[in-house]
Amino acid sequence: MPVDASLLPNLRNIATRLRIESIRATTAAGSGHPTTCMSAADLMAALFFAEMRFDPHHPEHPMADRFVMSKGHAAPLLYAMWAEAGYLPEKQLTDLRLLTSDLEGHPTPRLPFVDVATGSLGQGLAAGVGIALNARRIDADYRTYVLMGDGETAEGSVWEAASVAHKFKLDSLCAIVDVNALGQSQPTEFAHDMETHRARWAAFGWHAIVIDGHDMAQILDAYASARATRGRPSVLLARTLKGKGVSSVEGKPNWHGKAFKPEEAERAYAELQAQVVEESEPLPAIPLPSPPEPEPAPGDMAPPAYKIGDEVATREAFGTAIAKLATADKRVVSLDADVKNSTFTERFEAVHPERFYEFFIAEQAMIGAAMGLAARGAVPFPSTFAAFLTRAADFVRMAAISRVNIKMNGSHAGVSIGEDGPSQMALEDFALTTAQPDFTVLYPADAVATERLVAEMARTHGPMYMRTSRPKTPVIYGNSEPFPIGGLKVIRSSDADRATVIGAGVTLYEALKAYDTLKAEGILIRVIDLYSLHPIDAPALVDAGKRTGRLITVEDHYSAGGIGDAVARAVASAGLTVTRLAVTEIPRSGKPDELIDKYGISARAIVDAVR
Amino acid sequence: MPVDASLLPNLRNIATRLRIESIRATTAAGSGHPTTCMSAADLMAALFFAEMRFDPHHPEHPMADRFVMSKGHAAPLLYAMWAEAGYLPEKQLTDLRLLTSDLEGHPTPRLPFVDVATGSLGQGLAAGVGIALNARRIDADYRTYVLMGDGETAEGSVWEAASVAHKFKLDSLCAIVDVNALGQSQPTEFAHDMETHRARWAAFGWHAIVIDGHDMAQILDAYASARATRGRPSVLLARTLKGKGVSSVEGKPNWHGKAFKPEEAERAYAELQAQVVEESEPLPAIPLPSPPEPEPAPGDMAPPAYKIGDEVATREAFGTAIAKLATADKRVVSLDADVKNSTFTERFEAVHPERFYEFFIAEQAMIGAAMGLAARGAVPFPSTFAAFLTRAADFVRMAAISRVNIKMNGSHAGVSIGEDGPSQMALEDFALTTAQPDFTVLYPADAVATERLVAEMARTHGPMYMRTSRPKTPVIYGNSEPFPIGGLKVIRSSDADRATVIGAGVTLYEALKAYDTLKAEGILIRVIDLYSLHPIDAPALVDAGKRTGRLITVEDHYSAGGIGDAVARAVASAGLTVTRLAVTEIPRSGKPDELIDKYGISARAIVDAVR
Repeated sequence: MPVDASLLPNLRNIATRLRIESIRATTAAGSGHPTTCMSAADLMAALFFAEMRFDPHHPEHPMADRFVMSKGHAAPLLYAMWAEAGYLPEKQLTDLRLLTSDLEGHPTPRLPFVDVATGSLGQGLAAGVGIALNARRIDADYRTYVLMGDGETAEGSVWEAASVAHKFKLDSLCAIVDVNALGQSQPTEFAHDMETHRARWAAFGWHAIVIDGHDMAQILDAYASARATRGRPSVLLARTLKGKGVSSVEGKPNWHGKAFKPEEAERAYAELQAQVVEESEPLPAIPLPSPPEPEPAPGDMAPPAYKIGDEVATREAFGTAIAKLATADKRVVSLDADVKNSTFTERFEAVHPERFYEFFIAEQAMIGAAMGLAARGAVPFPSTFAAFLTRAADFVRMAAISRVNIKMNGSHAGVSIGEDGPSQMALEDFALTTAQPDFTVLYPADAVATERLVAEMARTHGPMYMRTSRPKTPVIYGNSEPFPIGGLKVIRSSDADRATVIGAGVTLYEALKAYDTLKAEGILIRVIDLYSLHPIDAPALVDAGKRTGRLITVEDHYSAGGIGDAVARAVASAGLTVTRLAVTEIPRSGKPDELIDKYGISARAIVDAVR
Repeated sequence: MPVDASLLPNLRNIATRLRIESIRATTAAGSGHPTTCMSAADLMAALFFAEMRFDPHHPEHPMADRFVMSKGHAAPLLYAMWAEAGYLPEKQLTDLRLLTSDLEGHPTPRLPFVDVATGSLGQGLAAGVGIALNARRIDADYRTYVLMGDGETAEGSVWEAASVAHKFKLDSLCAIVDVNALGQSQPTEFAHDMETHRARWAAFGWHAIVIDGHDMAQILDAYASARATRGRPSVLLARTLKGKGVSSVEGKPNWHGKAFKPEEAERAYAELQAQVVEESEPLPAIPLPSPPEPEPAPGDMAPPAYKIGDEVATREAFGTAIAKLATADKRVVSLDADVKNSTFTERFEAVHPERFYEFFIAEQAMIGAAMGLAARGAVPFPSTFAAFLTRAADFVRMAAISRVNIKMNGSHAGVSIGEDGPSQMALEDFALTTAQPDFTVLYPADAVATERLVAEMARTHGPMYMRTSRPKTPVIYGNSEPFPIGGLKVIRSSDADRATVIGAGVTLYEALKAYDTLKAEGILIRVIDLYSLHPIDAPALVDAGKRTGRLITVEDHYSAGGIGDAVARAVASAGLTVTRLAVTEIPRSGKPDELIDKYGISARAIVDAVR
């Protein structure tokens, strides 16, 4: 494809300015990564000013092409691009890394041109997959671009994302690998062996284009080739030099993550200024995206339709609930990792296959894509066994930093799964999720609570996790029972209660059995269903503790980081302590009831603790 | 290579027996995965009875070839193999999944022929990398074999491990992919498209051999070809049928994870028995491994050589410590993920490059390989930024289940790293690690404590995590100060103390500043350095709480799952509560001191809390 040569001088000058601004900002901050910005400056100048369609003054435009800076340490380059485009005032760039500025060391979605926080390498491509899937959901023609470093492609998550992008035939997705051949501590594994890079991407089904990442004509040509490719994603593999443009650092090791000293910066500016070429006609204006089409307002789900006493596993109730929800709310999408027949997301797929995404056994890509989908307006419910969400723990961490609207569902939690053994038992999922500030954590005990909480999850913005269980449990709530996030249910109560037992999920039924046993002995206890761990209803817990004198938690989770700790934090300032019944050792295979008893979270253990 | 045809009938019959025993065990258990055992039975019969060298009565032999069942749900097949070899009594096989049996639903190292627990797919190959690296460390000629499923290769961790295996030129490593084309919920992405599998492995530098996984001659030939390959690892890509040998399930969907009903099993036995062929001469005995060579006993490290008041970051002290340790103890190896110049493991590399392994940016492979190394007698210290250990959270979970002797080091924890921002700040690393039962968690405040604790880590068996810090902090302990695991240091104390402030790492210095400020006002406080979070010195904490009336924790960690929760659990039974100073929101970029103050964990915040 012939490139319009008149664009080249101006684009080269933009790249030079991006380099200068990247140095200026990091030198002002006294830290940061100028050289990794400089290697990618030509690629980015071409992308932003001769390839992408977007509105420079409306970065969040829903139909605009999207860009993910997966190599988040090149944040100053990203900020310089948006200054060059006219969105950020140039003088703000030197506020980089100040506590008072949103121009953080790595990009966060506090900035409207950032969809997901980056800085933990290897996550951006999965987010790009989600953003590209969202274009299909809303029938938009926007394209998605993701810039990675070459060192970053050592992360397995990149290859998960690469594989699913091929599976989903995401031809609107274009990755760019800035092969500057230098990692933090030494040369990258393949240095400038471009053929190895090409062979890997091609083997994963991508249209792989090897270019000189400092040759503006090759860059433009490659973007055009990617845009013209149908049925599969494209990747530009760009041979570059770290620190390109400044001879004292260009291609040199030991310049990773080092700002230029002021005098070094002055010499760099002079050297870069000398590279400014004569401009041709002004560049054409950045093409604007298609006009946005408002999404239909979500409808309300019909209320649950269970009968008290029905035996339904909460994992199954989850599947029923999201299938109903999908019809009421077009924003809702379901993702699964080859366990749809266990999580019951197959019920979603049956009614809305066009919004169901099978990721196979690739949990990182699934959560990363959910983050991208959420960033662009979808309400994604990624589901797998709770134990395997741990595989995506770093994505969960970044989802919390991003404050994206993802709704994770983890099934088969705890020793109550039984014979499969500890590798399949999530016993630290609450530790993982409640650690993150503002991460909502829910744990319904019955089918009604599950369905009500699924509806609340869709209605309320923010990252959330719901734990569901494998065993069937009886429905105990009426279909009109409300389950507000942050609430709890007192389900047994009298003025004579001598202790409060706080259960959730499967252990609530143990608490109810203990209640019956103790009542027969004349001992009354209060029983609380703590279906919302975070936020948590601290006043109600304090009240129960004060009225009954004792708080006992019982949970199918390890003793650290779970329900006991959450309750203890909530009541500490009232001077109350908590007796914790929890799993305290690595469990074994066995029957669910055997394990619940062996690990001290059965009705018997509760009765003993109360006595 | 011509195959000895006389082996074939007997190996085929072994495969048939393995199928029968896999069905028998899962039917007795009433759950499990017979069909995934049946697809791999021919591959395993050949591997165990015509390829591997091991001592059937001494599975833990240090020079024996090793086998990792990465597709852990095929555990019954593994148990049947060891019964066939004569190690397990055949009648034990039907104890599968009983609470009283070590034959769990997925393999755990409670069994001497299991190196690492599996069942979370995609981990075995990384463990295999570590096991193969260990052969180099002890100069052994053993080979390492890893069986994976085809669905499993969707996990990015597999490609991380594949990449590093190529980088390390691990020709003693042989992977086997059982391409049975059926996942849990539907056909795998590539079904029997063997060419796509081949292209991927070849692009990752492996010697990839495509075979019919039910053709015993092809299987033997492929193992021989792998054994003869030099300079790179090999992979057998075996086209198989799930449920092979029983027509009612062979190649059929919806048989994943389902045991045969007793009457189905009877029909299956009959069909399989009919496949028994006439035997030739008995198979040659399994070749025994080379005689073991005892490892040299570890020597003692010289004591630390710091001066009180030296300004040394604990991350740097860690680097110094493991470099010293490496010389004293040949079992010790260091692994890093392209941050050796930040974690200071480059000091280890400088003195013992032969035991330093650079994994580039592949944290899952690093931790997985550390698990494999540990399982074979090495004492691995994998290191990276604490935030990026989160990427390997599921490996940490499985390391805990495996009880392997890994010693993780996470540097750059908390808001005290400053300008890089939240993506680089570990603030949930304690939540992740303390959740795991029996996972030792350490957090030294100064260089002496760091070096002493590194020595303790090497001396004491079990999975461990040490958190180190970015900022320089003064040395406060004498070089002979002991730091036993499970201890704490009371560093300010009087009979007039009105509160106990518990710090660790960087916050200890804030506590000491607060002590000085309060003392000037006539308020005395006790100050504790809680360098060991888990195990924790509960009696000493209770004593301090009772004597001073108040316990205040201050930590550079989120409020859930950290030091406050650990102390609260330790003192709850004594009726004591804890006031927690911790990071309670997603932090921003800024200067370390600014952030420590803004997020409420500074001396000022402590002074306010005490007052």
